[in-house]
Amino acid sequence: MSTGLYSVKMRASRQEGGREVHISGAEKIVEPDRLKTICDQLLERAVRHSKGEADFINIKVERVAAADVIRRDALPVTACEVATAEEGRQKLGELLERSGIPNGEEILGRMKETWGMRGAMLLDVDTLERLEPDQGRGVRATYMDVADSGDDRSQKDHFKEALVLATKVASHKNIVGEICISDDPDYVTGYFASKELGYVRITKLKEMGCPDGGRIFLFRGDEKEAEDCIRYLERQIMLVRI
Amino acid sequence: MSTGLYSVKMRASRQEGGREVHISGAEKIVEPDRLKTICDQLLERAVRHSKGEADFINIKVERVAAADVIRRDALPVTACEVATAEEGRQKLGELLERSGIPNGEEILGRMKETWGMRGAMLLDVDTLERLEPDQGRGVRATYMDVADSGDDRSQKDHFKEALVLATKVASHKNIVGEICISDDPDYVTGYFASKELGYVRITKLKEMGCPDGGRIFLFRGDEKEAEDCIRYLERQIMLVRI
Repeated sequence: MSTGLYSVKMRASRQEGGREVHISGAEKIVEPDRLKTICDQLLERAVRHSKGEADFINIKVERVAAADVIRRDALPVTACEVATAEEGRQKLGELLERSGIPNGEEILGRMKETWGMRGAMLLDVDTLERLEPDQGRGVRATYMDVADSGDDRSQKDHFKEALVLATKVASHKNIVGEICISDDPDYVTGYFASKELGYVRITKLKEMGCPDGGRIFLFRGDEKEAEDCIRYLERQIMLVRI
Repeated sequence: MSTGLYSVKMRASRQEGGREVHISGAEKIVEPDRLKTICDQLLERAVRHSKGEADFINIKVERVAAADVIRRDALPVTACEVATAEEGRQKLGELLERSGIPNGEEILGRMKETWGMRGAMLLDVDTLERLEPDQGRGVRATYMDVADSGDDRSQKDHFKEALVLATKVASHKNIVGEICISDDPDYVTGYFASKELGYVRITKLKEMGCPDGGRIFLFRGDEKEAEDCIRYLERQIMLVRI
């Protein structure tokens, strides 16, 4: 067993009219002997991205102690086929209700506040109070990866990345659920995830071509638990077995 | 002719007792087809450095337009052998005088203000006023590299890097000279550099084992020229033919 791993984070962007436009991003947690390969793959991905050529790429490498890494099995995945976004939202409402979360309608109504945020909203499901220290940015769930080894990761796998994130988020004792709608205009599938119900893909949560997307992490607990939850989401290192 | 180049900057550090200790750093300006090789070499250098293993490595890649790159020949290099640090400082004083810079003694006395600064002091040679917007940090001369191609750059070449920096600095019309003493306790050689006198290595400017080092960029001009000079030092991209 190695005594350490590396966290590798890449982000790429381009200047357009004085504004920084995000092109791609990724994070990996890898064994030392794969560090070079992963950095090459992430660099390659950043340089040749379908959204165009980046003019800024940052790769951050941090050593993490093996003892600081938690390993978890991925949430079980189920799919929920719906014909319309309206039906998808109804399903979401049902899942919230089955999870013992009141105020389903109101929570879904808050979704629009997340459009354009880099991170997620952390919402107290009982008081409907937002708990992020910076509400413009939100809370970012990070430092997680698939606990595999050796496969080629030069291609981004949106589903795996979402499942890894959802597993990490749902694993915190004060998180009672997560709602996610992609901000990719071509991708209308979203999900609800929780410890009890697993990762439930809902095949349509918005109209094709709509760029609106975001995440809400649903929280139940006190102030101290909220602080602990944010620290966990932003700093705890997790490898997820898929 | 390629239409663009990449600037690549690497810095590596380690946490020690809650404090970030610098381990290594480097910057390169490369053709697109060498980007991957250079990133690999810089990563390798950061991971296996004689100062110990890094636990934080950052690699920043920026595209630069070929039209924004200035090319210059390196300053001519001469060496000035001295027996003692005292003699070395006398030599420095003579070089300042030959460069038409008054207040030589006072300027050398300011050197101690640069110990521990990340950047250099920018000093008005006539008023002896410091011109850096942030005096704790100083001004950093950056975005420069050797205009070579293809050679292995996995090893750091301190002399070449210093000559490249000195050439860029001296090339600004308002810079009348530069004084540099290394902060490496094992490296007692320093230099004076200017357009007129070239790069003059002085073989002893401090005692062996002394960790004190820094740089002063000697400036003559008005306030607007000082702003232009700082912008040039920190942003202008230069390739130096050695």
